[in-house]
Amino acid sequence: MQAARIVKVKEPLEIEQLETPKPKGSQVLVKIESSGACHSDVHVWEGYYEGIGGQPLKTTDRGVKYPLTPGHEIAGIVEDLGEQVEGFSKNEKVLVYPWIGEGMCPACRVGEENLCDKPRSLGIYTDGGYADHVLVPNYRYLVKIGDEMDTDTSAPLSCAGLTAYGAVKNANLKPNDNVIIVGAGGLGLMAIQLAKAVTGARIIAIDLDDKKLEIAKKNGADIIINSKKEDPVKGVMELTDNLGADAVIDFVNASKTVETDMQSLRRRARLVLVGLFGGELKLSLVTMPTRAYKIIGSYTGSLNDLIELVSLAKREVIKPVVSERFKLDQATEALTKLKDGKITGRGIINP
Amino acid sequence: MQAARIVKVKEPLEIEQLETPKPKGSQVLVKIESSGACHSDVHVWEGYYEGIGGQPLKTTDRGVKYPLTPGHEIAGIVEDLGEQVEGFSKNEKVLVYPWIGEGMCPACRVGEENLCDKPRSLGIYTDGGYADHVLVPNYRYLVKIGDEMDTDTSAPLSCAGLTAYGAVKNANLKPNDNVIIVGAGGLGLMAIQLAKAVTGARIIAIDLDDKKLEIAKKNGADIIINSKKEDPVKGVMELTDNLGADAVIDFVNASKTVETDMQSLRRRARLVLVGLFGGELKLSLVTMPTRAYKIIGSYTGSLNDLIELVSLAKREVIKPVVSERFKLDQATEALTKLKDGKITGRGIINP
Amino acid sequence: MQAARIVKVKEPLEIEQLETPKPKGSQVLVKIESSGACHSDVHVWEGYYEGIGGQPLKTTDRGVKYPLTPGHEIAGIVEDLGEQVEGFSKNEKVLVYPWIGEGMCPACRVGEENLCDKPRSLGIYTDGGYADHVLVPNYRYLVKIGDEMDTDTSAPLSCAGLTAYGAVKNANLKPNDNVIIVGAGGLGLMAIQLAKAVTGARIIAIDLDDKKLEIAKKNGADIIINSKKEDPVKGVMELTDNLGADAVIDFVNASKTVETDMQSLRRRARLVLVGLFGGELKLSLVTMPTRAYKIIGSYTGSLNDLIELVSLAKREVIKPVVSERFKLDQATEALTKLKDGKITGRGIINP
Amino acid sequence: MQAARIVKVKEPLEIEQLETPKPKGSQVLVKIESSGACHSDVHVWEGYYEGIGGQPLKTTDRGVKYPLTPGHEIAGIVEDLGEQVEGFSKNEKVLVYPWIGEGMCPACRVGEENLCDKPRSLGIYTDGGYADHVLVPNYRYLVKIGDEMDTDTSAPLSCAGLTAYGAVKNANLKPNDNVIIVGAGGLGLMAIQLAKAVTGARIIAIDLDDKKLEIAKKNGADIIINSKKEDPVKGVMELTDNLGADAVIDFVNASKTVETDMQSLRRRARLVLVGLFGGELKLSLVTMPTRAYKIIGSYTGSLNDLIELVSLAKREVIKPVVSERFKLDQATEALTKLKDGKITGRGIINP
Repeated sequence: MQAARIVKVKEPLEIEQLETPKPKGSQVLVKIESSGACHSDVHVWEGYYEGIGGQPLKTTDRGVKYPLTPGHEIAGIVEDLGEQVEGFSKNEKVLVYPWIGEGMCPACRVGEENLCDKPRSLGIYTDGGYADHVLVPNYRYLVKIGDEMDTDTSAPLSCAGLTAYGAVKNANLKPNDNVIIVGAGGLGLMAIQLAKAVTGARIIAIDLDDKKLEIAKKNGADIIINSKKEDPVKGVMELTDNLGADAVIDFVNASKTVETDMQSLRRRARLVLVGLFGGELKLSLVTMPTRAYKIIGSYTGSLNDLIELVSLAKREVIKPVVSERFKLDQATEALTKLKDGKITGRGIINP
Repeated sequence: MQAARIVKVKEPLEIEQLETPKPKGSQVLVKIESSGACHSDVHVWEGYYEGIGGQPLKTTDRGVKYPLTPGHEIAGIVEDLGEQVEGFSKNEKVLVYPWIGEGMCPACRVGEENLCDKPRSLGIYTDGGYADHVLVPNYRYLVKIGDEMDTDTSAPLSCAGLTAYGAVKNANLKPNDNVIIVGAGGLGLMAIQLAKAVTGARIIAIDLDDKKLEIAKKNGADIIINSKKEDPVKGVMELTDNLGADAVIDFVNASKTVETDMQSLRRRARLVLVGLFGGELKLSLVTMPTRAYKIIGSYTGSLNDLIELVSLAKREVIKPVVSERFKLDQATEALTKLKDGKITGRGIINP
Repeated sequence: MQAARIVKVKEPLEIEQLETPKPKGSQVLVKIESSGACHSDVHVWEGYYEGIGGQPLKTTDRGVKYPLTPGHEIAGIVEDLGEQVEGFSKNEKVLVYPWIGEGMCPACRVGEENLCDKPRSLGIYTDGGYADHVLVPNYRYLVKIGDEMDTDTSAPLSCAGLTAYGAVKNANLKPNDNVIIVGAGGLGLMAIQLAKAVTGARIIAIDLDDKKLEIAKKNGADIIINSKKEDPVKGVMELTDNLGADAVIDFVNASKTVETDMQSLRRRARLVLVGLFGGELKLSLVTMPTRAYKIIGSYTGSLNDLIELVSLAKREVIKPVVSERFKLDQATEALTKLKDGKITGRGIINP
Repeated sequence: MQAARIVKVKEPLEIEQLETPKPKGSQVLVKIESSGACHSDVHVWEGYYEGIGGQPLKTTDRGVKYPLTPGHEIAGIVEDLGEQVEGFSKNEKVLVYPWIGEGMCPACRVGEENLCDKPRSLGIYTDGGYADHVLVPNYRYLVKIGDEMDTDTSAPLSCAGLTAYGAVKNANLKPNDNVIIVGAGGLGLMAIQLAKAVTGARIIAIDLDDKKLEIAKKNGADIIINSKKEDPVKGVMELTDNLGADAVIDFVNASKTVETDMQSLRRRARLVLVGLFGGELKLSLVTMPTRAYKIIGSYTGSLNDLIELVSLAKREVIKPVVSERFKLDQATEALTKLKDGKITGRGIINP
């Protein structure tokens, strides 16, 4: 098999020829048709996130090891199965749940492997989807997508869609709530679609880009605010009788956006931090109890969430937009474009 | 009636003669027997909390107006009733729920008046318990304590006890969880008793004072750590297979304690901030999603919580410790001692 | 003021002239514009529900006292206010929350007055809306509906809408769940609209009437089954890989429908019983634990639910259908038509 | 290996020599030290449960196949491991979680395998613990018990303890609630210990046997009622201001006990049905919504629950009582004694 691998951080990915693994026990070998290029792949490629005090947080401190085949949005075809696999057969079209855990920790035991103490996520801690094949450690991580869905639009569900869905769930929205969605890019757009579909909340989308905001409006945002052109805090306060928003979901999660978020919160509000941009927030500690805020870090979602999401996608509640396609040997190009903000929607690698 | 009032912040309280109000409609006039002196009264007296960047947060910016009769831990005797009051009669012994809301906001509608958008809490936004009488706006805020309980030990339930209980609930503890209680003073001790009584968690108490820690151990702490003598982060990591604590409840909530808290958290951990000490935390934003932390501000508790708490206290699960008693004209002395950390347990004003 | 009252069960209602009450304290006098005629009014008029072993359950055993002015779906105009009322003024258009509790029980304390131990619901335990005026005991029970909504279509929200919403909440639906709605009449239709709007579940509507089922389909039902023409159990099993439905909401709740429900349940299913038709179910006790079923009685909803519902209605998620109008002296005719099943949608009394 | 098997229902178990399986993949072979004899084994042996209308519910209709090695409370020593097993080594002392699911259904995906659509529970659907060895399909189902615990008292945790724990969780108890525990036998006693340890509820134990009730009192019951000597409904009403109990957990679940339960419920009460005695209840349908009851079938518990339970047992919150020991060839005798109610506490088979 062939894979595009990060051998050294920040260097171009290398195409390597590897031995195609033979699945044993409950393992399944999937022939990859579509592999999403996610902005978090850029961090893995660059080797760090933004930390506090200007210091970077290294990916190796989070347990990432190189060389690594990145890629965690994987859809394809079952090619081979271990002898204990049940319920799947060769040539079935599947989406892969990549947020695999060790299986024994409290999170894994309740099906939240994405929050495992010792994660084994594909494309982050073990080899992932920038390749023509991937070995999935257990058939339980496969979701059948059938003929209704194609692999290109399915692949982004397992990270972009799932992360948006997990964030919307963490915001615990009710009808009559005002929720701010910060960042109307790929994830923000999915969150707007999902919040529209399964909560009755009023949705306020904030972004710097009028074009994205217009798409947000078409996809369910009740109100849009361009924070380049008007003061978003003032805007939110006017919309909420000067009380603030019941919840904010921040898909950027940088110092600047979160400072604004903090000023837009109603007493009791939930602030859901999702993006991996990072940086530092100066948090006023006394404000936390007196205003009864909840700040919630939200990281992807569970296998059960993914299955709910696929069900919603089959009924076209979620419509991931694929905007660009790459070959495996264009992986470096895909990451560079992502880094430079030149991909709207989702870039897909078809190996 | 007579009241000890804050006329000007930081100045000694003044004893004023006020007209005794006549209860109308659903109102009740309570003759105060016991009024707890709470550390938060010191902030109201001083007129500020610690903010960010060394800047104070003024109590007037939070809506506090002076002159004010402070005091929100009130127990006494029903003296007079409005014509619409039901179910209470003169001379009944009652505890007063002070965290009164406006009644119309989403929090009030589900019985969480302590989190009201426009709070009217006794002793903070309206005149409170440093007096011989208090006008309670509705009989629904009275809890009968009967002959099993005396007013001196009941009064602290409505803030010290309730705040500890609300914090323990917010920590969402399960058997097998490791929970750190930061600060083994009055509130911390009640939290230890409560966590012992209604969760099956393993309790780690942290304080600077060996004497307090010994009392903590007697009251249910499984492990105690003196953070003056040993590194608490190292201690917690050793106790938790290097994973960190499932939850931390911080009754200090100052920059220094919360920095330590952040280093002691297991992935998915809940950090419950309770104390009003304040100051600033430099929060690493990217860590919130990757570690899936929840930071939860916890502010007192609901009327329903107070009734559960009184039920537990009647069965002696909670045993508030009254260590010192004052007269009404000693109110300034009581606040000064509190400020200087010279009251262990609870000081009570008997007017 | 004038009211249509049940003086004796099963006898025609009598138009009585009563003294118009003067609101005191927190009370509000509402001039009624629209009063919904609900099927449960028929039970109050007839004086009984269907019990077990063919025995009736008398309304007087439930605490109802006659003479009584029925009617609990009330919308109108604020006419006069007690001296402690805040935030409302004369001539404001309001919807009345009728499920009023005593205020002191555990349900009331968390805002679920509809489930009070000692309920005081308007039109059931105290005089209600078949009149030109009603005295509301506290301004907290009023919901402003503004100019966006008219009183005729708002009135049914406080029972028909709220009961449907409460039932949908009790069913705890998730995307990918299959939910059966039994009875596609007024409440069933609202439940379909609500389930469509705030859950991602697949909705199966069951009724005996093709016309109602077609309307159900237009309003969001994914699948419809006419149980007169085909076996509903067989139909459900075919749709669910022979597993059964994840939830059933039964707006009829008669022996025959519930027997069918019980055969349509997936392991772990929630069966939500709403209708007041009554009768007896022979429940197999051992099946409850082995199949892990939950049978949940659902009774109207909370004030908070009503406010969420009004918010959804303002955005036209819920569209109550008013099909017929009556004058106050036609109240007996309205109840007779309801009893005979001759009103589809909602009948409104305009006094 | 050797096993005591049900070859034909109601006939004495036969001791058979079977080939000792060789664990593959993630499987583990456990050498059994202790195997609890549970009353539900009697139903599997007799081949039926009590249904409705006097009709038996056959175990074969529930998917049980004979010959079968019964026994689902299993503790022992790891003897051999498949090549994909991690984190376990030979000779480790383990408790086996027997409520194994197929792994793909919604319940399994959130770690509630005990409620799986297509269960594979040991001793019920596949060969279990009345043997000297058992093949566990995945190492994830093993819980290390270490040196603090012995296998005889640990084994009953996986059904008797877990079923009690699951039922207490389903009752959703709060401090100040009154909960009735029906049946003060092995499971009831554990439920009392658990409710005492992790809820603040007031516990009312009901049984026919004074001796059991005395033990109940020692283990945490606040009030005991002998239903042979006094009317339990009258007793409960006197204890609850005529309101009824907030929750009932029925470990018998027979027609007679549940009829009594239904008369003891407060509005909003949860009735948790656990026992497998069975029979029929004539349920008044209209009472379900008007009284807002919840009837909840509770079946064992999850793996996560078991780990919480083991943690509580290590700290001696739960103390299972082993009263009698048998050899493998005495399995029929053990079941006969159980059937005749001659074992108090737990009977253990030591093969």
